[in-house]
Amino acid sequence: NIVLVLAKKNGISSLEQFAIDICNHFMTTFCQVAYVKTYIQEVPWQRLHEDGVPHIHSFICVPDGIRFCEAEQCRNGPLIVFAGIKDLKLMKTTQSGFEGFYKNEHTTLPERHDRILCGELFCKWSYGECKDFDFDCIWKKIRECILEAFAGPPDCGEYSPSYQKTINCIQMLVLSRVSQVQVIEVVLNNTFFNVVDMKNLGLTNDKEVLVPVEAPYGSCACTLGRKKFFEAQGH
Amino acid sequence: NIVLVLAKKNGISSLEQFAIDICNHFMTTFCQVAYVKTYIQEVPWQRLHEDGVPHIHSFICVPDGIRFCEAEQCRNGPLIVFAGIKDLKLMKTTQSGFEGFYKNEHTTLPERHDRILCGELFCKWSYGECKDFDFDCIWKKIRECILEAFAGPPDCGEYSPSYQKTINCIQMLVLSRVSQVQVIEVVLNNTFFNVVDMKNLGLTNDKEVLVPVEAPYGSCACTLGRKKFFEAQGH
Amino acid sequence: NIVLVLAKKNGISSLEQFAIDICNHFMTTFCQVAYVKTYIQEVPWQRLHEDGVPHIHSFICVPDGIRFCEAEQCRNGPLIVFAGIKDLKLMKTTQSGFEGFYKNEHTTLPERHDRILCGELFCKWSYGECKDFDFDCIWKKIRECILEAFAGPPDCGEYSPSYQKTINCIQMLVLSRVSQVQVIEVVLNNTFFNVVDMKNLGLTNDKEVLVPVEAPYGSCACTLGRKKFFEAQGH
Amino acid sequence: NIVLVLAKKNGISSLEQFAIDICNHFMTTFCQVAYVKTYIQEVPWQRLHEDGVPHIHSFICVPDGIRFCEAEQCRNGPLIVFAGIKDLKLMKTTQSGFEGFYKNEHTTLPERHDRILCGELFCKWSYGECKDFDFDCIWKKIRECILEAFAGPPDCGEYSPSYQKTINCIQMLVLSRVSQVQVIEVVLNNTFFNVVDMKNLGLTNDKEVLVPVEAPYGSCACTLGRKKFFEAQGH
Repeated sequence: NIVLVLAKKNGISSLEQFAIDICNHFMTTFCQVAYVKTYIQEVPWQRLHEDGVPHIHSFICVPDGIRFCEAEQCRNGPLIVFAGIKDLKLMKTTQSGFEGFYKNEHTTLPERHDRILCGELFCKWSYGECKDFDFDCIWKKIRECILEAFAGPPDCGEYSPSYQKTINCIQMLVLSRVSQVQVIEVVLNNTFFNVVDMKNLGLTNDKEVLVPVEAPYGSCACTLGRKKFFEAQGH
Repeated sequence: NIVLVLAKKNGISSLEQFAIDICNHFMTTFCQVAYVKTYIQEVPWQRLHEDGVPHIHSFICVPDGIRFCEAEQCRNGPLIVFAGIKDLKLMKTTQSGFEGFYKNEHTTLPERHDRILCGELFCKWSYGECKDFDFDCIWKKIRECILEAFAGPPDCGEYSPSYQKTINCIQMLVLSRVSQVQVIEVVLNNTFFNVVDMKNLGLTNDKEVLVPVEAPYGSCACTLGRKKFFEAQGH
Repeated sequence: NIVLVLAKKNGISSLEQFAIDICNHFMTTFCQVAYVKTYIQEVPWQRLHEDGVPHIHSFICVPDGIRFCEAEQCRNGPLIVFAGIKDLKLMKTTQSGFEGFYKNEHTTLPERHDRILCGELFCKWSYGECKDFDFDCIWKKIRECILEAFAGPPDCGEYSPSYQKTINCIQMLVLSRVSQVQVIEVVLNNTFFNVVDMKNLGLTNDKEVLVPVEAPYGSCACTLGRKKFFEAQGH
Repeated sequence: NIVLVLAKKNGISSLEQFAIDICNHFMTTFCQVAYVKTYIQEVPWQRLHEDGVPHIHSFICVPDGIRFCEAEQCRNGPLIVFAGIKDLKLMKTTQSGFEGFYKNEHTTLPERHDRILCGELFCKWSYGECKDFDFDCIWKKIRECILEAFAGPPDCGEYSPSYQKTINCIQMLVLSRVSQVQVIEVVLNNTFFNVVDMKNLGLTNDKEVLVPVEAPYGSCACTLGRKKFFEAQGH
């Protein structure tokens, strides 16, 4: 009920503002509450367009990366706001390899210089002291950074020597372009694609026919932050 | 292996052509085969664009309606090709009601003249004798018909007295615009949205705060075809 | 509402009887109805037991094969009742091979004489003219037949030369033991398990360490019926 | 590869021991590793039985609560082992209410003294210093505690004034019976069931016909530990 009442009274100017409102409500109303955490996820409805004209009342669900946010607060502590994107599936059909990795007696994986990189990306970042941020605008900017760092320039692309490196590029670009972001976590699952060996079938296969290998898949999670943030945490 | 070999040898000019190729292969290679059915589904990868420029090797997965097709053939029978779209989620936030329906002693549902229509659409159609159809082009045209019939004109929309009527409009529009379609089946699930009663909370709620009711939901399936098709079937 | 009212008035003596009641209601109440199909699925709640004592009001959900049924009727046609089990996951860790299969130039799969058979079974059968069947009892008996034919005797098991043959054994056993079943359809998905090649790691691997290959997987669907049934259908 | 090699070399005496082995391997082999976390989940295969006789090679998948464990270690810190159960669906058809809760101007929920309690339970606990625990035996004992505290005695059951209280009972019983458990977290989602109002249909409904309300659902998460544990953490 409280969530519905707050939606009615305050409206939802942005996901993040609504998460903050809910946190504030519980902190200020109930003195016995020691900690509040709010999670909000958007259903990705987009307005329909016909020949470029936006439709007055019709929408289509386009789940190409789901927006979410969190707000959390301990009593006597700062309000921390996180935002993120999940279920964002991306693929590079070339200019991706896996090379220069640590090898020991357990390593059987060969180096690869032209493979497919295909994965599901999860990204979550925290804002510093929340002033009057335009959360919608920042979120869109970060989504663009992710796509740009993943793909490289549209005309020539960019070589990825590993998906770990790609994750790092995404994080570096976001931190350099979006000053409000303090810490950014990225998780990328990588589904492998096998080039089918067709020799026994009397055929060559120059990376024309590939089959996805759904399990086991690689997964890499990395968290990167600004120096001052980690210093403040005592690290 | 056969599917991989055919992909390598013939390429995939369209989903439907590839389904036809697989059918033909089994029918012509194995005389003991009495019936073949092929189902192919597309993973909805779309090329990334940066500022309108298509990216050379990067893609994003955009599941706003999944394209699929089927080809089936009985020995000595015609090859029948179906195509379709599934998991297409659409919503009208207004200009939708539910009225004029049959009522008896079991009816407790009131008539509604302004509700939300929100559902997941499945649509499958059959082509007649397959000549040299441009399957990709026809599929896109049918998808546009579905959206147009669901939404109405972008500037004013169109009132839907029931989602059953909306299904019928979709089918009529496809059959009138796309001569290659013989029969079209549409299934639409309708998730209800309750306008939250806020009187006990001391608030009015003029359709501002709604809650989806995920179960039970309404579902309507309807198949519509051209007269000559059903006559040929002896109906 | 009608389903709820029928549940209240008639109770649910068995899934199948309730499906029949719903069919009958629509056929006898609405003369414009030409065809009715009912599908009912059970949520697999089982009564909790403590040291063998059944609990008076507590249940646990045990989804080891979901029971479902269908009833369908065309006006002026007979009422046909189907029952089935789905999502039944079974595994044989040995005594399973794949041999004696048709080979041509596209065959690269070697014969195997000791592999894991692991799959998800779907089974659906139709009853003949429904008299006063004890649907619950028959369903349990068929479930036992499926497990017995899949596994073989508990002390020594039974060799399966292919999962296609195992499907056939299941169908033959059900038809021989349960006279009420007219036609039985079985679908079995087979997930492969690779014995990991550990030579490059300096280790032997005598089928101790295996990895499941989730896609692509094999799938076989087969429908088997009594002779008189197919004669009646004109086949 | 390392996981496969460890499975081959050490075998898997229990999930927890295998998780510990993996942690140890990374900590002792790579001096640059600062933190390791392992998660292992069991696929719930159970040996088939025919008339009480265990089958030599056949298994059935029975997902009535999935066992998992985690092991985590920071360099120079202790190895912490967690175990748990998830996706355990339980129901009480009576002797469950919701009463005595805090009320203010936002409260519209009435007190209930006989409702259905139906939810999905997640439970995770940590062990103290791991000596030679019989992890399998402890896990089974905790599962029994959960069921016993949820259900009460089989002959008369036990009244639950709220599912929050039921969670607390589960935690208290586990901590009192299983000395190795230091902290226990329980999350219980509660799906509501509406008693259908049949007055407008001219029928009474004495809790005979109910409909589940899948969203929104209640959810409660609670973590409970021994005093000495929290003192050691500085709380």
